[in-house]
Amino acid sequence: MSISRITEVKSASPISFDDAIRQGVARAEKTLKNIKSAWIANQEVLVNENGDISEYRVHMKITFLLEE
Amino acid sequence: MSISRITEVKSASPISFDDAIRQGVARAEKTLKNIKSAWIANQEVLVNENGDISEYRVHMKITFLLEE
Amino acid sequence: MSISRITEVKSASPISFDDAIRQGVARAEKTLKNIKSAWIANQEVLVNENGDISEYRVHMKITFLLEE
Amino acid sequence: MSISRITEVKSASPISFDDAIRQGVARAEKTLKNIKSAWIANQEVLVNENGDISEYRVHMKITFLLEE
Amino acid sequence: MSISRITEVKSASPISFDDAIRQGVARAEKTLKNIKSAWIANQEVLVNENGDISEYRVHMKITFLLEE
Amino acid sequence: MSISRITEVKSASPISFDDAIRQGVARAEKTLKNIKSAWIANQEVLVNENGDISEYRVHMKITFLLEE
Amino acid sequence: MSISRITEVKSASPISFDDAIRQGVARAEKTLKNIKSAWIANQEVLVNENGDISEYRVHMKITFLLEE
Amino acid sequence: MSISRITEVKSASPISFDDAIRQGVARAEKTLKNIKSAWIANQEVLVNENGDISEYRVHMKITFLLEE
Amino acid sequence: MSISRITEVKSASPISFDDAIRQGVARAEKTLKNIKSAWIANQEVLVNENGDISEYRVHMKITFLLEE
Amino acid sequence: MSISRITEVKSASPISFDDAIRQGVARAEKTLKNIKSAWIANQEVLVNENGDISEYRVHMKITFLLEE
Amino acid sequence: MSISRITEVKSASPISFDDAIRQGVARAEKTLKNIKSAWIANQEVLVNENGDISEYRVHMKITFLLEE
Amino acid sequence: MSISRITEVKSASPISFDDAIRQGVARAEKTLKNIKSAWIANQEVLVNENGDISEYRVHMKITFLLEE
Repeated sequence: MSISRITEVKSASPISFDDAIRQGVARAEKTLKNIKSAWIANQEVLVNENGDISEYRVHMKITFLLEE
Repeated sequence: MSISRITEVKSASPISFDDAIRQGVARAEKTLKNIKSAWIANQEVLVNENGDISEYRVHMKITFLLEE
Repeated sequence: MSISRITEVKSASPISFDDAIRQGVARAEKTLKNIKSAWIANQEVLVNENGDISEYRVHMKITFLLEE
Repeated sequence: MSISRITEVKSASPISFDDAIRQGVARAEKTLKNIKSAWIANQEVLVNENGDISEYRVHMKITFLLEE
Repeated sequence: MSISRITEVKSASPISFDDAIRQGVARAEKTLKNIKSAWIANQEVLVNENGDISEYRVHMKITFLLEE
Repeated sequence: MSISRITEVKSASPISFDDAIRQGVARAEKTLKNIKSAWIANQEVLVNENGDISEYRVHMKITFLLEE
Repeated sequence: MSISRITEVKSASPISFDDAIRQGVARAEKTLKNIKSAWIANQEVLVNENGDISEYRVHMKITFLLEE
Repeated sequence: MSISRITEVKSASPISFDDAIRQGVARAEKTLKNIKSAWIANQEVLVNENGDISEYRVHMKITFLLEE
Repeated sequence: MSISRITEVKSASPISFDDAIRQGVARAEKTLKNIKSAWIANQEVLVNENGDISEYRVHMKITFLLEE
Repeated sequence: MSISRITEVKSASPISFDDAIRQGVARAEKTLKNIKSAWIANQEVLVNENGDISEYRVHMKITFLLEE
Repeated sequence: MSISRITEVKSASPISFDDAIRQGVARAEKTLKNIKSAWIANQEVLVNENGDISEYRVHMKITFLLEE
Repeated sequence: MSISRITEVKSASPISFDDAIRQGVARAEKTLKNIKSAWIANQEVLVNENGDISEYRVHMKITFLLEE
């Protein structure tokens, strides 16, 4: 009988959305065990004064399995 | 002045959605106090190779009262 | 030329969601004629101090046919 | 590399939502292989002239694995 | 590389929605560091037997920065 | 076994959203008993020719308990 | 200080959606005063055995002004 | 025990949305039996270089009854 | 490499929704070049004191191509 | 035959949401004529290092009437 | 007079979301003609026991033109 | 007291979604100052006759700061 919890995180990367997702999952791994998946809720880029994309931001719902 | 927190869980049962809800609340009770309610966000069934429903999955938002 | 009205109700039962739906339809039958259907908008359970599910709550949109 | 398709069905039962789900999955099994899951999109009951629930209707999205 | 977490709270006040928000943020401050923002998901008032508004309830998503 | 009904109202005030909510609940009290809560669905302001906010409009779903 | 109520209706016509809307408003006029507007929530057509559209169905939210 | 399937189509007409719906249902009739209804998900018009509406596009979910 | 902008308009007609759409597109043509499409976000009718539909209102998102 | 346009703005105030709305409408008045209404899409507060609410942010859709 | 159908697929790739989309379209090409577009409904990553992203999953709605 | 405006654009690229976003922001930079962010509303790919992805399309809401 499996029970899992969902935690919401926002992670950012100067490179790409895919990298922001990897960073977010990696950070969550530091405190959570049995991470199973991450659903992408929102994607946003920040733009600096030169008009360049400075940050790729991803809002994710991470699911991790609870121990019995 | 009451403040409560909401935690998202996914629980599963081989029997029914109602049972999956009970299991999810019971598991949350192990780590949380003052659980007040659980709102049903999503319901899904898993199907095994014989075409039978093997699992009833419920995605819930559980509300619990914070102590002052 | 059929015209029907929709009324929103929340009904509760200590037993199950299905029972809460039956109770809601039965109560609506006391004051409304020609009830045709009930669409389930939301489902929530209430939890008592012992951590048991004390109430199954259903929020429904009931459609009933208006007489010409 | 897995690819699956999603098909939408509405199934009904005079007994309960759980039964309507089982019926829907069983019917889909007749024509589809590798059914994996069914997500519940909508739930509605039909009411007859006596005010009794005559039908439990479920609108589901069924996911099945495509062969390579 | 910033990572932040989102926690969902419901807070209430007998005075106004703005006050309920302040209370909710203040309570979260007791247990969380680096709170950055709170997005208002839902607003509801409770009414007592005299027909007066007894409580302003706010459902918020609070974002706080995680330390590296 | 509690059953409640939901009625949708739009109320307006020249002062503030909070006042528009109070007005709406007060008006509903004239015709309905056992009002329990009001959920805020939408908020809009109207603007007059001078560019000033002339009206705060709130669209609410009011829940009231039905007598057995 | 204006307060208005919203009632949900489904009306049908064998001719067109516009006609179904007119029919719905006309029927509501029989029992309600001060009808101001009708927002179109949903549109659906029914199809008979010959494959022809037999009915244009509109689900509307009708707003009417309450008297002080 | 009725089971129906839902298929999504986009149909277009140079005349009107109603005509686009009729065309879509008529085309579906060529390959599907027991079509019961079509729910309108989206409506869009295309505009040509002269600024005239060249096409009325309707995105519909067509429900058809499966044989036992 | 095509880039287009989207502008939101509300247009009204005493005749029908289709006419309100044509009017809205025609008015946008006065100030915008390269209009490509209009997606229908919302539809509402206004009702006068005699209970007749006085106005068909359409809320649209108009897409137009930007010049390089 | 009225046609209006909708523009989306985000405005902020250190005092309250109501003030943020007034500021947003006032700023829009500087560049737009015939502003009619502002619908509140989103509300968010920013929190400073002391844990106090430093800014009330409102995301609004402002409707203004186009001249013929 | 163009009519197109929409089919929903979920495709996965160990490399990236863009690759998962390419794979999904390529697989659909095996059984469908005149594919025109694919709208991204959902994106999710799966995580293995080492905490690495093992799969990029995309849920898409693929539109293909029906022959007359 | 900061006020910003939101403009909706659709941009396309033959390479990837990330590139389409960069193109859209770069094009907006030609006419707008103080661009702060771009939220991704929708993502869609177009497919050519050979079944290859010919275009990555992104629908974005770009936020830019208004000068006092």
